[in-house]
Amino acid sequence: MKVFENESVTFPKGFTAAGIACGIKKSGAPDFAMVVSAQPASAAGVFTQNLVRAACIDWNQNALHFNAHEIRAIAVNSGNANAVTGAAGQRDNAAIAQETARLLQCNPEQILVGSTGVIGVPLPMEGVTQGIKSSHAALSPSGGRDAAHAIMTTDTKPKFVAVESSRGWRIGGMAKGAGMIHPNMATLISVICTDAKIDARILQTITASVASKTFNCISIDGDTSTNDMFVVLANGASGMEADPAEFETHLYEVALTLARRIVEDAEGATRFVDIVVEGAKSDADAFLVARTISTSMLVKTALFGADPNWGRVIAAAGRSGAQFDPKNVSLSFGGIEVLKGGEVVDFDEAAAHDRLQAREVRIVLNLGAGKGHAQAFTSDLSHDYVKINASYRT
Amino acid sequence: MKVFENESVTFPKGFTAAGIACGIKKSGAPDFAMVVSAQPASAAGVFTQNLVRAACIDWNQNALHFNAHEIRAIAVNSGNANAVTGAAGQRDNAAIAQETARLLQCNPEQILVGSTGVIGVPLPMEGVTQGIKSSHAALSPSGGRDAAHAIMTTDTKPKFVAVESSRGWRIGGMAKGAGMIHPNMATLISVICTDAKIDARILQTITASVASKTFNCISIDGDTSTNDMFVVLANGASGMEADPAEFETHLYEVALTLARRIVEDAEGATRFVDIVVEGAKSDADAFLVARTISTSMLVKTALFGADPNWGRVIAAAGRSGAQFDPKNVSLSFGGIEVLKGGEVVDFDEAAAHDRLQAREVRIVLNLGAGKGHAQAFTSDLSHDYVKINASYRT
Repeated sequence: MKVFENESVTFPKGFTAAGIACGIKKSGAPDFAMVVSAQPASAAGVFTQNLVRAACIDWNQNALHFNAHEIRAIAVNSGNANAVTGAAGQRDNAAIAQETARLLQCNPEQILVGSTGVIGVPLPMEGVTQGIKSSHAALSPSGGRDAAHAIMTTDTKPKFVAVESSRGWRIGGMAKGAGMIHPNMATLISVICTDAKIDARILQTITASVASKTFNCISIDGDTSTNDMFVVLANGASGMEADPAEFETHLYEVALTLARRIVEDAEGATRFVDIVVEGAKSDADAFLVARTISTSMLVKTALFGADPNWGRVIAAAGRSGAQFDPKNVSLSFGGIEVLKGGEVVDFDEAAAHDRLQAREVRIVLNLGAGKGHAQAFTSDLSHDYVKINASYRT
Repeated sequence: MKVFENESVTFPKGFTAAGIACGIKKSGAPDFAMVVSAQPASAAGVFTQNLVRAACIDWNQNALHFNAHEIRAIAVNSGNANAVTGAAGQRDNAAIAQETARLLQCNPEQILVGSTGVIGVPLPMEGVTQGIKSSHAALSPSGGRDAAHAIMTTDTKPKFVAVESSRGWRIGGMAKGAGMIHPNMATLISVICTDAKIDARILQTITASVASKTFNCISIDGDTSTNDMFVVLANGASGMEADPAEFETHLYEVALTLARRIVEDAEGATRFVDIVVEGAKSDADAFLVARTISTSMLVKTALFGADPNWGRVIAAAGRSGAQFDPKNVSLSFGGIEVLKGGEVVDFDEAAAHDRLQAREVRIVLNLGAGKGHAQAFTSDLSHDYVKINASYRT
């Protein structure tokens, strides 16, 4: 498979996209994106498990339930989550789908909608309606990167990547997210398009499987969003039927790259942390431990300080709920073994501190309890995270 | 009941205490405390549920199992957790009990031990042995505050309080803790003494019940310690048998005050946050919601910024696992109603911002799903929390 770092959702055939500003963000930055398939596409999606859900989440689940074989487009606004906005929020969401459908001459139920930003504030519908028109007018086969720009909130850079299979079909995706990231079955927003031909039901199975190994393994702050969604559109424009296993490998590559980019761009982050848990009783136990370590404020602040404070890693594992005997635990921190069979290894603190100054740090924890394995990705917790989130709305 | 803000563990009759420095802390600050009952005391305790446990935790559970009617003393060192220190750590812990018992002329199994500080570093036993001798020599009926000083780590002030019942028996307690605070059946370290006469089994029941309503309701960073313990000693020196219900009320007062002091002294904190959850399906659901809000990094950073960002509170409730319908939720923030029956109330943002500048902020969330109720206490998340924890060991 070939990777294209500079390509986005319009890399596969038959997709156009645009990203424009319509006044939701006070800064005037782009805040409305549209991605359109020239022909009806198979679609699949996974959505937030948060009980408090944005209007777009319910809309999309309904649309995929009835129209998973003929989705035409997704319209995404940033700067406003349209969550906890009551019945008016649902009407606004439907209006976005209706106006987009009118311009594309299809049914509103063929349109997916995404929103991200502040919770509890009504959408400024006059601007949004204008935004739908402008982005429709701006649709272009080279608009993928503009779309990736227009879905950003506290992100410092747009996130996109694409791949091409040896047979020639393509997958291109974009994602956004830098805070309120602790996905549970999805991430904040990721849209991935492909021109491979693939049945919607198979696509849904693959999408859920890939989400569990990519977006669901990242955490920035332990807070699951009300608006998480990961959507895949397959329009078959390449004319090629994709082998499901091969397609999953390619989709995994795109999704993993985007998930990593989200962690790399985590609010205030200075380090990317890769947590590998091995030797657990089960994969589920391993995931529990990896997830607990990845959300520990004490682990994350220690990493910001490049402090090989492995005691905090062990303490987090111990409170995770997974079963293991501390006497059998081994741990390495940035490649330096600090604990072996439950006993402390006499390691060079200064060298470890140097090693942890790296942009990317790997923690490998072996629980000595079985063959379970899992991986989680997180960021460190810095002064800037606090700064960004103490004044997000002001 | 009368409250004595200036009294500690030696307020009840028949207790002496001391706090001295023995060289565990590089700073030379006090790091060894001893609290002694003149006569064998009934004792009860609740301990960390973390799978990774300090040597002292196992020791104390064993001591309470066999000797809950005749505990003589507790010896606590600060600056070193003696956790993840293997077989040597267990030997060191036993040696502390043995040396203390030798000086008090009792059995080692009548001695409880506490440790708090860095994980994974062997105790400097030469200094510790000297510390046992010095603190024994310094034991005094007015040593309660010195003991509270000597158990501090990142605490900025010692925490103690005492009460006297109308009949004259007394309870005095101390606690420490400012980080790695998310107690699960206990808190970092709290020792409470009483001269009331009370059976050890009844005392255990009351202690566990009080812990669940006080120490277990606080969280600073979501990280459960390896060394949490909450121990109560009742030596009966007042000659008065305490009525269990009356005793529980008094013990609750002391424990709640100490628990609140821990949150008030949370690492880097500028605000004390009181989270009340009402109208849940059950008390357990209410506690789940209160606990999730109290550990949300986004809620805590918003509070640092005095931002009435109630969307983050609702989002945290939604991911807690509790069952409720977002349409029935009401929420007030620092006394200002922001959400009623799931709909946003048009409130004065500037006034709310002013209100949230207070040292103490109350969030009241009504889920509209039943009669379940719970309360949790937490701090805000500030720059200084990151600063303190990025360089704790260096």
